[in-house]
Amino acid sequence: MPVLYHHPASAASRFIRLCFAEMDFEADMIEERTWEKRAEFLRLNPAGHLPVCVAANGQALCGPHVIAEYLDESFGVFKRDRRLLAEDPYKRAETRRLIEWFLIKFEHDVTTPLTRERVIKPQMRSDDGGGAPDSKVLRTARANIRQHLKYLSWLAGSRPWLAGDRLSYADLAAAAAISVLDYLGEVDWKDSPQAKDWYQRVKSRPSFRPLLSDRIRNMPPVAHYADLDF
Amino acid sequence: MPVLYHHPASAASRFIRLCFAEMDFEADMIEERTWEKRAEFLRLNPAGHLPVCVAANGQALCGPHVIAEYLDESFGVFKRDRRLLAEDPYKRAETRRLIEWFLIKFEHDVTTPLTRERVIKPQMRSDDGGGAPDSKVLRTARANIRQHLKYLSWLAGSRPWLAGDRLSYADLAAAAAISVLDYLGEVDWKDSPQAKDWYQRVKSRPSFRPLLSDRIRNMPPVAHYADLDF
Repeated sequence: MPVLYHHPASAASRFIRLCFAEMDFEADMIEERTWEKRAEFLRLNPAGHLPVCVAANGQALCGPHVIAEYLDESFGVFKRDRRLLAEDPYKRAETRRLIEWFLIKFEHDVTTPLTRERVIKPQMRSDDGGGAPDSKVLRTARANIRQHLKYLSWLAGSRPWLAGDRLSYADLAAAAAISVLDYLGEVDWKDSPQAKDWYQRVKSRPSFRPLLSDRIRNMPPVAHYADLDF
Repeated sequence: MPVLYHHPASAASRFIRLCFAEMDFEADMIEERTWEKRAEFLRLNPAGHLPVCVAANGQALCGPHVIAEYLDESFGVFKRDRRLLAEDPYKRAETRRLIEWFLIKFEHDVTTPLTRERVIKPQMRSDDGGGAPDSKVLRTARANIRQHLKYLSWLAGSRPWLAGDRLSYADLAAAAAISVLDYLGEVDWKDSPQAKDWYQRVKSRPSFRPLLSDRIRNMPPVAHYADLDF
């Protein structure tokens, strides 16, 4: 059985869990606290980031992009209209652009600083950099959320799904990132009805259920987190 | 004719120029100063980063990963033993892991801080954040180079090419990143004979020649930059 190293506060991990569920790909789950820099984990992925999938043959697949491409070329290609990456090269390019947007740019601008300050630092020892959240970092990240929600609303308002006519990796990457913020109560839905409508559709999929029952240690989600009618 | 927006100090741009040259893919080149945030460029790529390839049909392909995957699935697939991404899914995964290593991790740890401080800030107006290099940032980036050169040496010493038996995107991504640092005289080759031997092989390829004649505005390269026997 393949193994997925993941963390409930990692958007990239959530993205791959959604991909697995959409593709009926089963794996054992191991929660990894990357900030502890465990030697065994660093041997699997010297870059030290999540997720890492160890395939049934023992090969490690590192990071969301590598795993998503592997899944598509090994399994997705047989899924026909349930494939999560289009056949057309320009549509594939648009899907990949949006995966990067949500798992690199949005991650850099919003998800990483917010989760580091609110989830990881309280769990770290103070001599490793743990401690109270930095209010200046939180303020900047929250201002960035508003800009990103505008772009998400524009995408959601101008296309049936974020990258085009069909559900794709782009929707799963975006919803994974948004779900981390929504868990923490950082998304103000009332100003973004189009983004909210799109998120409601993704959140209602069976593949999303495991994420909604997920819990970050010592940090329960906001009340509406698992509510499909939020 | 396709158009490539690039910059001589951008490792990701150099990577795609190497890919184009290895695959005999022709494009017009436009130098883009991303820090000027030109509206027309941001319409092509809202993320604002390089490179961007506008294909002959007018579609914009944004960023090195998107362009490299597009090139492989549209052209590379017909190149047989000159293909830059393997056929085997696990070898493809290793190549993609290393592209990310050199164009995301190495970029974050080394290339971005060094080029921002040494190349971009001197060209920016002071009210946009221009000015003299920050010596603390330079010191950290230079310490990171030494760690990364150890990993590069290990890869180069344990495999014929970085991702396996054949030249691949991984070599081009790594050589693109190294070439920016080498231009700036930031690589100390004497402690890394295996990395040097590998770089010499990539640097000697015809695809590399245009990079060696490239010049960053107001900043000539170090003396050995274009020398194949450095």
